[in-house]
Amino acid sequence: MRQTDAASLTAELIQCPSVTPEEGGALTLLERYLSEAGFDCTRVDRGAVSNLFARWGDKGHARSFGFNGHTDVVPVGDAAAWSVDPFGAEIKDGIMYGRGATDMKSGVAAFAAAAIDFVSNTPPDGAIILTITGDEEGDAIDGTTALLDYMEGAQEQMSVCLVGEPTCPNEMGEMMKIGRRGSMTAYFTFTGVQGHSAYPHRAKNPVPVMARLMDQLASHELDTGTEHFDASTLAVVTMDTGNPATNVIPAECRATLNIRFNDAHSGASLTAWMQGKAETIAAQTGVSVDMKVTISGESFITPPGALSDLVGRAVEAETGRRPELSTSGGTSDARFVQHHCPVVEFGLVGKTMHQVDEQVPVDQIQQLKAIYSRILSDYFS
Amino acid sequence: MRQTDAASLTAELIQCPSVTPEEGGALTLLERYLSEAGFDCTRVDRGAVSNLFARWGDKGHARSFGFNGHTDVVPVGDAAAWSVDPFGAEIKDGIMYGRGATDMKSGVAAFAAAAIDFVSNTPPDGAIILTITGDEEGDAIDGTTALLDYMEGAQEQMSVCLVGEPTCPNEMGEMMKIGRRGSMTAYFTFTGVQGHSAYPHRAKNPVPVMARLMDQLASHELDTGTEHFDASTLAVVTMDTGNPATNVIPAECRATLNIRFNDAHSGASLTAWMQGKAETIAAQTGVSVDMKVTISGESFITPPGALSDLVGRAVEAETGRRPELSTSGGTSDARFVQHHCPVVEFGLVGKTMHQVDEQVPVDQIQQLKAIYSRILSDYFS
Repeated sequence: MRQTDAASLTAELIQCPSVTPEEGGALTLLERYLSEAGFDCTRVDRGAVSNLFARWGDKGHARSFGFNGHTDVVPVGDAAAWSVDPFGAEIKDGIMYGRGATDMKSGVAAFAAAAIDFVSNTPPDGAIILTITGDEEGDAIDGTTALLDYMEGAQEQMSVCLVGEPTCPNEMGEMMKIGRRGSMTAYFTFTGVQGHSAYPHRAKNPVPVMARLMDQLASHELDTGTEHFDASTLAVVTMDTGNPATNVIPAECRATLNIRFNDAHSGASLTAWMQGKAETIAAQTGVSVDMKVTISGESFITPPGALSDLVGRAVEAETGRRPELSTSGGTSDARFVQHHCPVVEFGLVGKTMHQVDEQVPVDQIQQLKAIYSRILSDYFS
Repeated sequence: MRQTDAASLTAELIQCPSVTPEEGGALTLLERYLSEAGFDCTRVDRGAVSNLFARWGDKGHARSFGFNGHTDVVPVGDAAAWSVDPFGAEIKDGIMYGRGATDMKSGVAAFAAAAIDFVSNTPPDGAIILTITGDEEGDAIDGTTALLDYMEGAQEQMSVCLVGEPTCPNEMGEMMKIGRRGSMTAYFTFTGVQGHSAYPHRAKNPVPVMARLMDQLASHELDTGTEHFDASTLAVVTMDTGNPATNVIPAECRATLNIRFNDAHSGASLTAWMQGKAETIAAQTGVSVDMKVTISGESFITPPGALSDLVGRAVEAETGRRPELSTSGGTSDARFVQHHCPVVEFGLVGKTMHQVDEQVPVDQIQQLKAIYSRILSDYFS
């Protein structure tokens, strides 16, 4: 009966200094463990980024369970502020310390250990696919996207996928993610005609026009939430003019806003809405309006069903908590995977991610491995 | 029959480099001319500023005609950009060039020459008082105000006063000023609570609150004008945040607005109005609001009547144009004089004031002297 120690594997991974985009030995280490256990491993490197594709079982099997995660980590930051070696994986009072301890070398170690033991001890009728990237914390252009591109070309297919990112705000097991809101940013530049404050009718002041548009956009209720999503939000994050002269009406004013949107909207529908408002106010005032938009990601969801039930039941069996099905938070690589197959996310408590003295209780790594093992066992039963 | 040449006197004054607060010999020159013609002269120097009080005739006479003006000038600016010596008073094709040519050494020369000739040739039953300051272009704290303080202490009194500032936009004689709008500036700082753009309900964003207040203030019609004044105007001249991060809601936002207001308002009434609006929006949003106000001057008016008729008739007789009675433009020392006696303003075409190659047609100086002479003659007849 094989029993791979997920905590030791986490420690070995932490000792690899894999700050994005450095591979740091982390993927090589995993490739060695997985190959030894019978996984077909392929390094999918693109640009400066290393990625690892690993499959156990037949290509194209109708029951192919996928795990996704990353071994790259954010920089150490102020090394002097750490109480331990950030790449030492030191354990004190049952807590393991190091960069990537929660985000997410422990998650990768837990699903790799679970997968190795499962295929070794109870080989299933199906396939297990691991996609592990070295570029989640960076631009994420050559990471999971490269792995999915590779899979499409090689006709590799996951039936479902679990992303092992930290998902629990405070207590182990309390939350899983079944989708994410979209995110977009709009940049406005209004141009009028400069003039003297004493004679505003001879100028065209872009500043109050910007104030009016930002008030209109910020006070509009985009929605009150949808079945699986919180309400969409719009935040005007800056308005700037830079005019030091109180007796001069300036020619230009700028503003930026950020929208987090649910499945009642799309980047295109919100762009059209803002464009319409801006053009109306431009026509009313004679101030010319320029708007540029960047869409970081559309919203997506894997509706509650077989996959979320599978994960939820396993979490409850191991922790006593039925996880909330959430769509909160920022972005993750699930936004890429959702184009390939149903995807959910479940992992550790994320409190210390990206912080100094990032840490994880050793028993939570073991608990996470147990949850992932139970998910595999239930999926293939 | 005495005939003082106002153009020569203008040239002599231009040759005195009296950039605020330098006296530059200008007041000393005038004191010499005026004393010689029988004026009682008193230098009223305060702080770094020199001023000249001059009276012909009995102190406290019921018919005391006043002139007010300044001999200080704004700096030359880019001396290399001038086509002439800024203190040379060079005449080319009937045009005299130099700093102060229009603003307002020509005006001072014209009324000093008119007054000297009038008391010399046709001594009136009354008094003529000249108040000439060396601090109109600067802070104006120790200028005309110091002269008026001196007069109050010495029980000197003008019955009426004419300020010789340039008042004509394009053509000689087209406009006189019978008052001025007030001017004030309000500085707003809104403070909320910083947070993540994805979770605006956990932050208090001051930016859209500022947008709403500025829209409310800018879109409010203060008035539609009063009997002698144009409509009051409010210009939001800057809104600034300086937040470079699109995923961060900032804690602070600032804005500045400038109001030019007529006699339907006062600095205090407008301050109270803005304070009320700001406090309402602060109470609605939980964003804290700080407002600071500086009042450059209240509005004032000398209603059309004997004084404006006197000046208007003289202008029309000499130029063929009956001047419009205006309250437009920025501020002048008339805002101080109005507390002492009825005051109006009439002078040259102001087009080139404060500019490179400031200039005045020599015949306009003579014409201005003729207008001032006629005003004196009519006043004392």
